Amino acid sequence: MECIILNELIDYDGSQISSLWAYNLADVQADSIIAFRGACDVKIEHMIDLEDKKQGDIIFSTDMLHFIIEHFDSTDLKLVYARQRLFTAIVKEILSSRLSEIERRGDDLFINGNKLTVSIASTSAVSQKIHFGINVVHDYYGSLDEIGIKGDEIGILMNAIANVYFNEINDIEKDLRKSRPLDVI
Amino acid sequence: MECIILNELIDYDGSQISSLWAYNLADVQADSIIAFRGACDVKIEHMIDLEDKKQGDIIFSTDMLHFIIEHFDSTDLKLVYARQRLFTAIVKEILSSRLSEIERRGDDLFINGNKLTVSIASTSAVSQKIHFGINVVHDYYGSLDEIGIKGDEIGILMNAIANVYFNEINDIEKDLRKSRPLDVI
Amino acid sequence: MECIILNELIDYDGSQISSLWAYNLADVQADSIIAFRGACDVKIEHMIDLEDKKQGDIIFSTDMLHFIIEHFDSTDLKLVYARQRLFTAIVKEILSSRLSEIERRGDDLFINGNKLTVSIASTSAVSQKIHFGINVVHDYYGSLDEIGIKGDEIGILMNAIANVYFNEINDIEKDLRKSRPLDVI
Amino acid sequence: MECIILNELIDYDGSQISSLWAYNLADVQADSIIAFRGACDVKIEHMIDLEDKKQGDIIFSTDMLHFIIEHFDSTDLKLVYARQRLFTAIVKEILSSRLSEIERRGDDLFINGNKLTVSIASTSAVSQKIHFGINVVHDYYGSLDEIGIKGDEIGILMNAIANVYFNEINDIEKDLRKSRPLDVI
Amino acid sequence: MECIILNELIDYDGSQISSLWAYNLADVQADSIIAFRGACDVKIEHMIDLEDKKQGDIIFSTDMLHFIIEHFDSTDLKLVYARQRLFTAIVKEILSSRLSEIERRGDDLFINGNKLTVSIASTSAVSQKIHFGINVVHDYYGSLDEIGIKGDEIGILMNAIANVYFNEINDIEKDLRKSRPLDVI
Amino acid sequence: MECIILNELIDYDGSQISSLWAYNLADVQADSIIAFRGACDVKIEHMIDLEDKKQGDIIFSTDMLHFIIEHFDSTDLKLVYARQRLFTAIVKEILSSRLSEIERRGDDLFINGNKLTVSIASTSAVSQKIHFGINVVHDYYGSLDEIGIKGDEIGILMNAIANVYFNEINDIEKDLRKSRPLDVI
Repeated sequence: MECIILNELIDYDGSQISSLWAYNLADVQADSIIAFRGACDVKIEHMIDLEDKKQGDIIFSTDMLHFIIEHFDSTDLKLVYARQRLFTAIVKEILSSRLSEIERRGDDLFINGNKLTVSIASTSAVSQKIHFGINVVHDYYGSLDEIGIKGDEIGILMNAIANVYFNEINDIEKDLRKSRPLDVI
Repeated sequence: MECIILNELIDYDGSQISSLWAYNLADVQADSIIAFRGACDVKIEHMIDLEDKKQGDIIFSTDMLHFIIEHFDSTDLKLVYARQRLFTAIVKEILSSRLSEIERRGDDLFINGNKLTVSIASTSAVSQKIHFGINVVHDYYGSLDEIGIKGDEIGILMNAIANVYFNEINDIEKDLRKSRPLDVI
Repeated sequence: MECIILNELIDYDGSQISSLWAYNLADVQADSIIAFRGACDVKIEHMIDLEDKKQGDIIFSTDMLHFIIEHFDSTDLKLVYARQRLFTAIVKEILSSRLSEIERRGDDLFINGNKLTVSIASTSAVSQKIHFGINVVHDYYGSLDEIGIKGDEIGILMNAIANVYFNEINDIEKDLRKSRPLDVI
Repeated sequence: MECIILNELIDYDGSQISSLWAYNLADVQADSIIAFRGACDVKIEHMIDLEDKKQGDIIFSTDMLHFIIEHFDSTDLKLVYARQRLFTAIVKEILSSRLSEIERRGDDLFINGNKLTVSIASTSAVSQKIHFGINVVHDYYGSLDEIGIKGDEIGILMNAIANVYFNEINDIEKDLRKSRPLDVI
Repeated sequence: MECIILNELIDYDGSQISSLWAYNLADVQADSIIAFRGACDVKIEHMIDLEDKKQGDIIFSTDMLHFIIEHFDSTDLKLVYARQRLFTAIVKEILSSRLSEIERRGDDLFINGNKLTVSIASTSAVSQKIHFGINVVHDYYGSLDEIGIKGDEIGILMNAIANVYFNEINDIEKDLRKSRPLDVI
Repeated sequence: MECIILNELIDYDGSQISSLWAYNLADVQADSIIAFRGACDVKIEHMIDLEDKKQGDIIFSTDMLHFIIEHFDSTDLKLVYARQRLFTAIVKEILSSRLSEIERRGDDLFINGNKLTVSIASTSAVSQKIHFGINVVHDYYGSLDEIGIKGDEIGILMNAIANVYFNEINDIEKDLRKSRPLDVI
């Protein structure tokens, strides 16, 4: 797995959730988590969550941290959704050191009842992907700014989150290689 | 999925990690999480983690909360390990409302640097299972007693953890049924 | 799994075989069987069976019972085809109480040598689906009318078929959760 | 797939449900259905269905038709259970030409409310297997004798059932190779 | 599996890598290897390898042997890539009887440092496919002509390669049906 | 993946084909190929190939190169058999630089009609494994000695084979991460 932190700003428009975006962008030929900062404005044709699409939801933010995860080891929907929830829990764990009142509801985080994040997960015939976005600032929704995370801390946070997921996956891969099969009653 | 809270004490000796234990115990014919309280003394022949087995580790506690999870929807090792990590994160989230200094390292929780929990996950040809145990009291390791969770709160906590996992899995199953497949670059 | 009987007429044009149609129609976030009545006129761009497409087959009926089944638990072609055959056998079992001369050839039913039904099954990256249609009346092919099933019996039959499949799947899910793995010679 | 009819009598004691029994018996290196006639007396250590085991069920018959199916193309429990139900429906279809009052409840057949058959399905790490037995004669349960199937008809029936399943599987394999993937809403 | 040798010339333009091409062409309803001879000129919209696409690679040859392999038994990327490498090794083995200096680098063959072949593998939701092309003559790249394989030998070679892969797959399918599962330490 | 060359002699008795042997031996928590030299004397209880078991085959050699491969990424029998054939082809490619008359028949290599190698592959619920052994010297069967590979060349060969497989697998993993899914006719 590779962990890549992009320094340039990239606006997330939903095309980045496509399979093989990482290869196209940076010749990545491994499972990967790629983190970057930029606005968020998901076009209707890139919406993966049909609930958003039905409701004509605007997924819009002027400044977000984005995490794009791609795994090629399986196209099982259940696995990518379990990983998405685990990623959400990881983000909560990291943010909780700054603010203990963060609440996780499924794949969403809330501060003071305000939605702080957006996320989606799905599969194609070749890979599984997760997008997770965290508002840096926002007029209406929750934001890192509201927790007091700003300036250089933003980049440090982006780095920390990407690396913790990277390490968690590597650690899982090692753990599952030392357990014998179950007995049966 | 079924969520079952057992009122009687059951000592965990490692046989409960076997596939189909839930059916044998209580005719459960569904994926399940079963919670109970009791001592923990894992016999060497029931050890799933070869690291414990090699080191002749004693997995022993006089009083623990036990959670036994069984899923029949897949025998993929990666999925059961992702679920195990997610479960561990859930337990941390619940305990954090009492003590914010709980640390998660993979599938273990620590308080003040002391290990609070034990856990293992694996598969057989028919199901995947997770055991997760939390010390209620312990002379040497971390315990709920140390966080100040005692008396009736123990049962309430046991209930809460089992139900949150139960709801999380149901919520995932609903979420993955409204996302369209990914596009490809 | 959910079993949904629609009272309004819906014409089947082949778009209903698409993954996530149930969610789009009725916010269904479960595996499902949806039954409705309406004409059948499958557009060439919605034909899944390339044999029909090659032969420029007209799949047309003015009045049919339609069953749309969607499972998200696997995208294995073999499984959805086994389920399609099982569904066909179920329909035969139910109709046989009215007319014993119904013949099943694969996923088709015949009465007096006339084709009574149409069916297709396939998968996308996220789900597996089956469409099964039964002529209520037909000038050329076999029909329920020909067996003497008409009036209120049509709705009763639609209900019965959907519910028997629903129960069969639930029963299978329970059965597979009480069998231990095979030994090996 | 191979379809093999054994002429010698073989008593079914439950060991025949083990993976690779067909190879051991007759060097079969293909998916297979093997039919034979003989008594049935399943030893407790060969019981796959834990419900039978718990209830100390005696699975005993002096004269049965036995069908042993083995597939190596998947070890998915859901697939072998769908195939088991399909096989049961096939047996019902064939017997119904003799007696229309045969009832199927899941993987069991009944005549006049009496159980005519026994069946089990499961998987090992290398294959999936089904056993299906039909009483030829029986003092207490239903039997072919009761339907009036006796003498040479027994062998003819054994042949017919095995061949219909063999053809059904071959037909499914052909069908799934001409369907394009689903669209998505 | 079917092994089909086409006598007419067919130019490979990349559309033949699509799933179900064999059914469309020749009503093939089995896994298959189809061999033919013709030019090669892959249109950009049919390029599967994003590396070629990014580099605007021209995949062009006036005369090639083409092998199109399709398997419906799995949509696992790892399996189709292992089969692609095995196929490449098979071609090398056959050609080595004529020229020992053939070098295999992954899925490419080289003679005297010149690339002799092109290949790609991928999956859709219903099947996995491999294309493998060998230059018969070429001004710039390596070719069979350069090894001294020409005239009637071209057709014999085409036949030999297709049949050896066909036999290898059949042999694998037989081999995996006589091995018991592994023990565990 | 890890590539490990053991310097000490280890006699292969069949226990090394068990899942998790690598972890038990050397705390390996990755997919791995482990190479070592030693005698070969497979006990009947460790025989995986039932053909050998039935025939009471003696798998015996006083001096062999052994390769033990373990992958945890899948328990698909088809994949481990494709990898076994690919490994066999790799060994042939390497040896062919010394002797061009090496013949591969499935997973066996022959020199001058004499069997040079033994091999087996299978899966457990947690991993897939391959054993491949090459006679260094042998009175009756083919051997490296017969090809003229002896002394220090033995160790060099052992290294080369293990590293080429290691690189091949890594290369496949990279290749499959740059191919888009197939179109469909």
